[in-house]
Amino acid sequence: MQRHRVAVIGAGFGGLFAIKALRNANVDITLINGTAYHLFQPLLYQVATGVLSEGEIAPPIREVLRGQENVDVKLGWAESVDTDNKIISVAGPGINYTVEYDTLIVAAGASQSYFGNDHFADNAPGMKSIDDALELRAKIFGAFEIADLQEDDEAKERWLTFVVVGAGPTGVEMAGQIAELAHRNLPGQYKHIDPRRARIILIDAVGAVLNTFGDHLSTRALAQLHKMGVEVELNTKVVNVDRTGIEVESERGHQRIPSMTKVWAAGVSAPPLARKIAAATGAEVDRAGRIMVNPDLTVPGHPEIFVLGDMMNLNDPSTGRPLPGVAQVAIQGGKYAGQTIKGRLRRKPPGEPFKYFDKGSMATISRFSAVASIGSKIRLAGFFAWVMWLVVHVFYLVGFKNRFTTVLHWAVSFLGRGRSERVATEQQAFARKAMYEYGNPFERARLDDAPPADEISTTQVEPEKVSAKR
Amino acid sequence: MQRHRVAVIGAGFGGLFAIKALRNANVDITLINGTAYHLFQPLLYQVATGVLSEGEIAPPIREVLRGQENVDVKLGWAESVDTDNKIISVAGPGINYTVEYDTLIVAAGASQSYFGNDHFADNAPGMKSIDDALELRAKIFGAFEIADLQEDDEAKERWLTFVVVGAGPTGVEMAGQIAELAHRNLPGQYKHIDPRRARIILIDAVGAVLNTFGDHLSTRALAQLHKMGVEVELNTKVVNVDRTGIEVESERGHQRIPSMTKVWAAGVSAPPLARKIAAATGAEVDRAGRIMVNPDLTVPGHPEIFVLGDMMNLNDPSTGRPLPGVAQVAIQGGKYAGQTIKGRLRRKPPGEPFKYFDKGSMATISRFSAVASIGSKIRLAGFFAWVMWLVVHVFYLVGFKNRFTTVLHWAVSFLGRGRSERVATEQQAFARKAMYEYGNPFERARLDDAPPADEISTTQVEPEKVSAKR
Repeated sequence: MQRHRVAVIGAGFGGLFAIKALRNANVDITLINGTAYHLFQPLLYQVATGVLSEGEIAPPIREVLRGQENVDVKLGWAESVDTDNKIISVAGPGINYTVEYDTLIVAAGASQSYFGNDHFADNAPGMKSIDDALELRAKIFGAFEIADLQEDDEAKERWLTFVVVGAGPTGVEMAGQIAELAHRNLPGQYKHIDPRRARIILIDAVGAVLNTFGDHLSTRALAQLHKMGVEVELNTKVVNVDRTGIEVESERGHQRIPSMTKVWAAGVSAPPLARKIAAATGAEVDRAGRIMVNPDLTVPGHPEIFVLGDMMNLNDPSTGRPLPGVAQVAIQGGKYAGQTIKGRLRRKPPGEPFKYFDKGSMATISRFSAVASIGSKIRLAGFFAWVMWLVVHVFYLVGFKNRFTTVLHWAVSFLGRGRSERVATEQQAFARKAMYEYGNPFERARLDDAPPADEISTTQVEPEKVSAKR
Repeated sequence: MQRHRVAVIGAGFGGLFAIKALRNANVDITLINGTAYHLFQPLLYQVATGVLSEGEIAPPIREVLRGQENVDVKLGWAESVDTDNKIISVAGPGINYTVEYDTLIVAAGASQSYFGNDHFADNAPGMKSIDDALELRAKIFGAFEIADLQEDDEAKERWLTFVVVGAGPTGVEMAGQIAELAHRNLPGQYKHIDPRRARIILIDAVGAVLNTFGDHLSTRALAQLHKMGVEVELNTKVVNVDRTGIEVESERGHQRIPSMTKVWAAGVSAPPLARKIAAATGAEVDRAGRIMVNPDLTVPGHPEIFVLGDMMNLNDPSTGRPLPGVAQVAIQGGKYAGQTIKGRLRRKPPGEPFKYFDKGSMATISRFSAVASIGSKIRLAGFFAWVMWLVVHVFYLVGFKNRFTTVLHWAVSFLGRGRSERVATEQQAFARKAMYEYGNPFERARLDDAPPADEISTTQVEPEKVSAKR
């Protein structure tokens, strides 16, 4: 007899924890993911700022699931789901295939949202993928290199102004890291600029940083940011982003900030697959494209389809607000879905609805300083919060990567003062085009005259292109 | 009074050792390099096979030269040199500039050569830059993922056949690492393939592996490669490379090897700058485009221009053959040029001509096994040679990176059994196009419909592209 087939779309926290919960279940699991790695998103900002390598936060899925015999990992991109016949159409690398399921877990995450201003993305990359982080790494370190070459003071200043939009945890951590880089790591390495003069500006439309952490921690975080030299502009709305600057509006009126390096850390939206599944099943979606699910995380009328993490919208009865888009919601949802499936296989009656247990929120602001809230009462700021942040993150990495050397590797990188991961590749240099102020041979040779994508490997060896390697 | 100005083109071993030799000299040094990092080329193959991150073998130049006050590091690409007026024209990122010199050190390295068959590069990337290594990483790990998705046995086999062209140290190390990956690291992680069945084929036109190491070590290396399951095809010439295979000729006639993943590790050529400088100064170049230099490493008639490392051709009087293109020739040449410049500043008479001291050659074949030759007598193979290899490499990395945590980091990566650095980015996935056998939505969405280079950052956030992130 064929075993119950579970298909999982997405190898984020939700998908992996659902699969781990089904470790000993009598099921055949197929995991479909667009990359061969899981991404530990909370540490992306450390890849962008040269602390960690991409491999350190992106363990191969096959390593994470090593030893779990009931999973088949497939590289591919779930294009659509035939919810009547229970078939997923997948576009894989060079091969299309289908995956049939009895139960489907949809956990494909979210991407950056520009609230209808998608063209902002040209000049203000988000922070959602390894590619985003490596592009930002190239931009941030490149900005200091390029500033050092400018003759003109205004140009130097434009290159040394970094604007981070969005003062949630990602934006705060990013701004803090750039400040640390500019004010502590890089000084003394340039002949024509002083990195300490770099401006780091953090902008948010609301009136507080880390708004969801509550007044006390918000105030502490703001003080810490000021101490690090980050300029914080609250109640300030971004109205335009272009190559050389950003325009904002606040009660002080309209203002243009000349800046070559902008980072977007505000807002998320669900992938198109969410709308497709909603359309097929008659489910509703919210403004961010997330599927409104039942209290047991299933799609209304389709108990065999679970939606997890950033792709779902469910009101938390204890707060009356939708559950936040954080790792814990995905992790707990994954465990819940796995347990529910196991219960059904044993023909148990339906269990309790999903209940999110808020373990708290944390954000690091600098090395040795963080803020953390635990439950509704405990609020911590400073060194102790930072140690807690570290322990929690090491704990999860250990759980995922499960190898002593890897963790040691990470601990060494992270605790060291090093910014050893600063490489920008030629491929990432394509993304740097927006940084260049003028057309010139450097740019032309590398970018404009660049061959089509399918010939990229050629450029790396064509004699005419060779000197770019120097 | 203006100080003596030394310009250095290239931050490889030659350029950096010349600069370090001038540490206490009364000169102003300008270093021009196309990337912000030095590249420790001998370990590129470990980046390609997932052992090390790119940052671990590519320390920022500014970190390497930290504390040396007489150097100005500039990002840029030396386009041409006006040797009469002693001015270098540089195309930098978004800005063109010139650098004047009293003494010029040209040390811009070499790139892969396909011996007139540059189109081979489309399907057989070389191993000269970080981009090469990351592209190969994407291809190698991608091949196992894609093989696992194939229905057809022939296709599986084509994806599981890896061909390395060139049995010098780079080719031998690369073939050994792929074999170790396939036969030791990856087995047990796939449902539909057995990585142990992967074929690794090492091809060379001459009759021995590690030809320059002498008969004894060559035989030992061959035995070790066989033991690891590498098929070695000697006296075999590559006549064609295409997307799905490679064609070779040997005394057994013409043969086609179906293989999706080919690596080119045979032959180098100097960058176009070498020919430009030769044309301007009347110097001769050899077939590989290298400048024929005087015994003191200067260009004939231009005692103020030194050429180092892979860009120069100088006969070694002790062997009657040109000096080999190895790190030691560049390092010793750099030190020699630096000392010569210091001597001249003190108005000393010209010293001895450059004399290369052959410290020996080494190549690792697998973890815990290497071959090494020292001077003309000592030949080592096996574990002890491997320990020596490790010590020498750690020694150089320490010298360059000069930070305890970085070395520990590296040691942990290298000694661990881990293949933790396996990330292929979307940007690198462009290079993967050659791997795909059919046109399909996965490919189209990612590659064909991909926007022009200057919009790459946009794709990462456009809602329509979002599901690629899963």
